[in-house]
Amino acid sequence: MSLSLPAGFRTAGMHCGIKKDPAIFDLALFVSDRPASLAGVFTQNKVFGSPVAVSRERVPRGTGRACLINSGNSNACTGQRGIEDARWMTAETAKLLDCPPEDVVVCSTGVIGRFLPREPLASGIPAAFEKLGDSPESFENAARAMMTTDTFAKQAVREIELNGKLVRISAAAKGAAMIGPNMATMLGIIMTDAELSAADTDALLRHAVDRSFNCISVEGHTSTSDTVFLFANGAAENGPLDDDSRLTMQTALDEVAAELAQAIIRDAEGAKHFITIDVCGARNRGEAFRIAKEIANSALVKTAITGADPNWGRIISAAGYAGVELKDSDMSLVLNGVEIYQAGAPAEFDTVSLSRSIKENRDVSIQLQLSHGNADVRFWTSDLTEEYVRLNSEYTT
Amino acid sequence: MSLSLPAGFRTAGMHCGIKKDPAIFDLALFVSDRPASLAGVFTQNKVFGSPVAVSRERVPRGTGRACLINSGNSNACTGQRGIEDARWMTAETAKLLDCPPEDVVVCSTGVIGRFLPREPLASGIPAAFEKLGDSPESFENAARAMMTTDTFAKQAVREIELNGKLVRISAAAKGAAMIGPNMATMLGIIMTDAELSAADTDALLRHAVDRSFNCISVEGHTSTSDTVFLFANGAAENGPLDDDSRLTMQTALDEVAAELAQAIIRDAEGAKHFITIDVCGARNRGEAFRIAKEIANSALVKTAITGADPNWGRIISAAGYAGVELKDSDMSLVLNGVEIYQAGAPAEFDTVSLSRSIKENRDVSIQLQLSHGNADVRFWTSDLTEEYVRLNSEYTT
Repeated sequence: MSLSLPAGFRTAGMHCGIKKDPAIFDLALFVSDRPASLAGVFTQNKVFGSPVAVSRERVPRGTGRACLINSGNSNACTGQRGIEDARWMTAETAKLLDCPPEDVVVCSTGVIGRFLPREPLASGIPAAFEKLGDSPESFENAARAMMTTDTFAKQAVREIELNGKLVRISAAAKGAAMIGPNMATMLGIIMTDAELSAADTDALLRHAVDRSFNCISVEGHTSTSDTVFLFANGAAENGPLDDDSRLTMQTALDEVAAELAQAIIRDAEGAKHFITIDVCGARNRGEAFRIAKEIANSALVKTAITGADPNWGRIISAAGYAGVELKDSDMSLVLNGVEIYQAGAPAEFDTVSLSRSIKENRDVSIQLQLSHGNADVRFWTSDLTEEYVRLNSEYTT
Repeated sequence: MSLSLPAGFRTAGMHCGIKKDPAIFDLALFVSDRPASLAGVFTQNKVFGSPVAVSRERVPRGTGRACLINSGNSNACTGQRGIEDARWMTAETAKLLDCPPEDVVVCSTGVIGRFLPREPLASGIPAAFEKLGDSPESFENAARAMMTTDTFAKQAVREIELNGKLVRISAAAKGAAMIGPNMATMLGIIMTDAELSAADTDALLRHAVDRSFNCISVEGHTSTSDTVFLFANGAAENGPLDDDSRLTMQTALDEVAAELAQAIIRDAEGAKHFITIDVCGARNRGEAFRIAKEIANSALVKTAITGADPNWGRIISAAGYAGVELKDSDMSLVLNGVEIYQAGAPAEFDTVSLSRSIKENRDVSIQLQLSHGNADVRFWTSDLTEEYVRLNSEYTT
């Protein structure tokens, strides 16, 4: 399946001058040629960027035409001037599209606390408009223009049939650090030509985000700028959803979102391992989630994986401080398919060969089985390497 | 003031054979020559070591004679056999002291999930008993025998007058990683010859721990073994406390506990900076604490300090996800005495000279001023270095 766009969408990505290096893109534009149903999910950080403030106001209208994204500056912690800059970005875009500014949403990602420079955007926004196209190259350019410390563009597409009509979903995301549950410096934009009510668009997006972008962490630091949008422009003319077609749509959306979320973790700064954490047998999804998140965010668990050390004590003890009522005998632990802890007691296993399996495989699986109930959660994270520390002590200033 | 013991206490530290290197101590014994008032505070991890289980049962009796501590093995996640091993350790000690086993409490620190070897302890406990002494050397030996990855012994002493009598407080602690609020792999033992009721002993200890060991973190991973004891044996014959003498005692205890807590952070694995975080002007202590803790545990804040980068965006955004109701305009931030963020907007400051002040000083001060109320918290943490990652990816196995 080629990385193409759904019917009725055009995108562009280019360098406008927010970043210094002219070879690096910093401005992305995503446009639907007709009003689309629009839903958005935003960071839960109480400190949030101006684009989040502006977009959050607009999403409840349930409709939109375009999303403008700049990288290189997050326009966060910039006060009233930041809000005015974000509104101005949408107004400049709306003029070109001949639509109200409220039909345009906006994201910014990059350094916190610097005022956005308007000059490069004043010429960049019309230039991006001129470059809009529906080719795979236009889509990739837009995905690349969202990137900050990402090393590759993150795109995912699906084709499904709804009521006999071909429906496409195409999505892009960025993110490589400041990644914590409840969204992080990650931006995602999902476009579909499906015909969806505003209520369906919102419900479908929330379900997908809860099982993807909210189930990843790099270091657990929730960003000020996290945003995921879903645009559904109806060009596929699939008619109203019934229960079956809604499930088909949800499944495809969940897959697209999970693919992008995993791509973010695969690109996590300095990471040598991609870690999948399955917490099974919990009383409810919330408890499973809290345990998975504590394991994922523990620097001691991460460094154990970095060192190819099947140190289950660090994993079990992280589960123990997740705020979930449990005893050590409620837990069993399987690491890369090998049981290393069984119902509260160390299991016999070959440490050397298990350590080798961690060392030789980028992908690591941690499965924590609880004896409490039937709820499961899958969570993705990265290990913590000297390279992560080096990157994050050298970034900025 | 020399690092000596209060009246009526004797201690010993030695190598018994749990650790391989015969030059490294692994067994500490702290004894009061008469029954002492005893209080204890333990890890809040739901997964806790057998010594925690055994000691936690005994502390409510309010009295004790001795504490036995081994390093090199935490006797955690070792099931019923672990409980029996911990009880056996107290029984062996009690035989020598001619007291009931319930008068002996026990701690173990080291690797999780290995059964405790009884042989070295069977000969080691009587040998430690023989070595008991009241000299500064005996005290230092005991403090050294608690250490795991610590690079120096942590001791603190105070002398005060209560009702005209000289009262001494002498304390030892260990800890260098797996340090998170609600106690971590840190052990502390505080001895005083003050005469204190069991209720006073408990209340005084909890107050001191809340403002010291519960206000530090290295990586925020709550350990399975954290324990702090306070023994008060009354040898100073100071009589009952009144409000004034209780305050004198509390202040001295708070100081001793804070001095040890800070020593743990000064010894944090791989750390290049000792960071003091003051959150002021919060609605209440709980909110100030949550904000301080999130700032302290953010890998992005820590690596910014490692890189001498006055990156206030990382600090302000960590405050934003602490679960406290706030707006960015409620916050101002002072780093090493320089205001860098004022009521929601970047302040003008000399980045180069502030960066130099971080680079050239081991001690860093982060002061976050809120506009909510009058509650303050002081919290201590370390930065995150490549060395920390190296140490923790190479430890164990």
